[in-house]
Amino acid sequence: MANDTNTVRIGLLGCGNVGGALIPLIEQQSDVIEARTGIRLEVTRVAVRNVARDRGVTLADGVLTRDAMAVVTDPDIDLVIEVIGGIEPARELITAALRAGKPVVTGNKELLANVGHELFAIADEAGVDLLFEAAVAGGIPLIRPLRESLRGEPVTRVMGILNGTTNFILTKMTEEGAEYATALAEAQELGYAERDPTADVEGYDAGAKAAIIASIAYGSRVVAGDVYHEGISAITAADIGVASRLGYVVKLLGIVEQDPETGAVAVRVHPAMVPKHHPLASVRESFNAVFVEGDAVGQLMFYGRGAGGAPTASAVLGDVIDAAVNLSKGTHATLGSFGRATIMGIDETSAEYLISLDVSDEPGVLHAVTGAFADNGVSIRAAEQEGIGPDARLVFITHTAREADVQATVRSLRDLDAVLKVGGFIRVIGS
Amino acid sequence: MANDTNTVRIGLLGCGNVGGALIPLIEQQSDVIEARTGIRLEVTRVAVRNVARDRGVTLADGVLTRDAMAVVTDPDIDLVIEVIGGIEPARELITAALRAGKPVVTGNKELLANVGHELFAIADEAGVDLLFEAAVAGGIPLIRPLRESLRGEPVTRVMGILNGTTNFILTKMTEEGAEYATALAEAQELGYAERDPTADVEGYDAGAKAAIIASIAYGSRVVAGDVYHEGISAITAADIGVASRLGYVVKLLGIVEQDPETGAVAVRVHPAMVPKHHPLASVRESFNAVFVEGDAVGQLMFYGRGAGGAPTASAVLGDVIDAAVNLSKGTHATLGSFGRATIMGIDETSAEYLISLDVSDEPGVLHAVTGAFADNGVSIRAAEQEGIGPDARLVFITHTAREADVQATVRSLRDLDAVLKVGGFIRVIGS
Repeated sequence: MANDTNTVRIGLLGCGNVGGALIPLIEQQSDVIEARTGIRLEVTRVAVRNVARDRGVTLADGVLTRDAMAVVTDPDIDLVIEVIGGIEPARELITAALRAGKPVVTGNKELLANVGHELFAIADEAGVDLLFEAAVAGGIPLIRPLRESLRGEPVTRVMGILNGTTNFILTKMTEEGAEYATALAEAQELGYAERDPTADVEGYDAGAKAAIIASIAYGSRVVAGDVYHEGISAITAADIGVASRLGYVVKLLGIVEQDPETGAVAVRVHPAMVPKHHPLASVRESFNAVFVEGDAVGQLMFYGRGAGGAPTASAVLGDVIDAAVNLSKGTHATLGSFGRATIMGIDETSAEYLISLDVSDEPGVLHAVTGAFADNGVSIRAAEQEGIGPDARLVFITHTAREADVQATVRSLRDLDAVLKVGGFIRVIGS
Repeated sequence: MANDTNTVRIGLLGCGNVGGALIPLIEQQSDVIEARTGIRLEVTRVAVRNVARDRGVTLADGVLTRDAMAVVTDPDIDLVIEVIGGIEPARELITAALRAGKPVVTGNKELLANVGHELFAIADEAGVDLLFEAAVAGGIPLIRPLRESLRGEPVTRVMGILNGTTNFILTKMTEEGAEYATALAEAQELGYAERDPTADVEGYDAGAKAAIIASIAYGSRVVAGDVYHEGISAITAADIGVASRLGYVVKLLGIVEQDPETGAVAVRVHPAMVPKHHPLASVRESFNAVFVEGDAVGQLMFYGRGAGGAPTASAVLGDVIDAAVNLSKGTHATLGSFGRATIMGIDETSAEYLISLDVSDEPGVLHAVTGAFADNGVSIRAAEQEGIGPDARLVFITHTAREADVQATVRSLRDLDAVLKVGGFIRVIGS
């Protein structure tokens, strides 16, 4: 530890949105933190790409540097915060810090969802903390409850609204009847969506977070590449209208499940119809929420801001205090070893499904269509016809069925002459 | 620690709902826990009042005993779980365990809300864990996030639906238009409410939990006696109807706030009108939820089962694993010293208020009534008249006002000849 046992000297790597919110937060809360823990946090060095840029924070002379590795290896630095993002050089910097016996706090989901297990092993070997509350669901305390409070809980499923951009877009589509393109444009104007929105709208951002949740919830290694993705760009206002009429809202969910028999883990991100009374249904705008189901605990939900400088800085600060207290006690959190998870593909998962079909208006259509379901062993829970004549549309909700069987059903339906188009295909969750 | 460093031998005090769910849960999860932590949990001794009673759990011969103190002092016991409830003998038993260097896990809200500070001091002096996640909001991980994740967060307010019985009753009144007595009778039939429902419906149970939350959130000692209480027994279906028409639902909230200037803490439990879009509004049936507001993190909510054997056992188990891991590492969580909080009385708190008045139908009534508000410096945000003639009713919602001024307004209103009755008086929260 430091020469002054009450001061923990922080090296901050990156000073954008999160770093820029963290520095004043530490300053403001420093007396409270000292009163509660006996530790004084000091942001001693800050590594940035552009030293000249104005960040709206006041730093003493010589604190800013362009040399991130020099911060990590500086013997005057006790603890390292990484908020640069991306895989390199973050991976190299964190590895060096851990190997030097310095605890690391990071909010880097991309890094953790790809090479987290490698960093966990280095941290455990070095006997120091690697904490990452900020990497999943921003300011929401989720990783710590999952890793500690629920360590003994038989967690059966975790479902999360893990991406604020897509939740904002879906909220606009639901509450204002907007089409996808309009809602996306509004999100881009407000700064909720990037100019290239792919990572958000196609579910890659949510997928990285789901992989991290799966690893923590089931203590086994799941990486970003294991995650099945479907985004929201194909969802129409009409789909949302049908869902609403049937008592559902459409949300983009990251879903993590474990097969109780085999221990295999399924991780997927896709739009889902959630019943209006379900707690996830009332998560609006750019908020995130994570819904946990366990045999003993029943249902839990964690709700809050999944992004933004200040909420993310709050999560980072919680980890920093924890690591600093551990450092002063000479202890650290044990991550445990993460064996590779057996991954269960999307085909083996089950859900209810909404399938809507544009059909030609002729005798025997319903008979042919229901035959396609029956032939593939998919049982229908509800069916209704919308419109008449050439605009006739059939909407089905299945009972719980295997994805593979439902996909086979869709193929059979496409082969029918009477089926003009297989429209909305949305999984139904949480009934 | 134990003679076998991988086994932690548990002494369980009490084997009712929670204990009876905990024993099979530990058994079921014991391999997973060992794989993740290297620790084997063993329920070695169980103290109960009636050894002969069938609990539906299988225990080896000699595990059950009537002598709780013998369990605590048994050198073969490494860790003590207290799920007896009440102040004595729980206090004496926990004190003895801590003084013997044994970590204690408890779910005893009454004990902690009254003499928690005393036990915290004993635990810190002995250098062992005293953990109590199960004491507030049952299975919901709340204490750990508040105490660890949010240790650096400037928490401005915590509002919770902390009592499942009253939330069940209010849900029935809201969704089915039931009167209070009918909804209470249904809750009693379903086992959600006790035969004597006072502790729940008058807010004492929620108050004890609010005192514990205040102590943890602000690091200062707040006891049950500091809490202002109003229950739900005076709430009518008509009040709920008015609230609903105005866009609100009525919830019994425990509210904890700190004055940012003076540091004084206000803790109160009372019915409140919550806007329908607020996350707390969608918490139905017997579920609990705690809504946390902080300057950096923004809004957070933690949702789940606030009571019941299995959810509470899940929270106890999380603490047990944590304490067992700490024990094996020779470390423990530091609670810190809890100086006595300066308590801010209800008079000094602020809110918006709904006030409804039965008035006589005569000229000048509205003028007289609004004068009572103006004289006491309370500004009106909305006013409307319901009904006409002898059944005329005036409903006001104020702007944010001090409780003392609003209470003075109510006294002035009662003195007016034209006011027949001051009916609904409900605080409005979270607009």
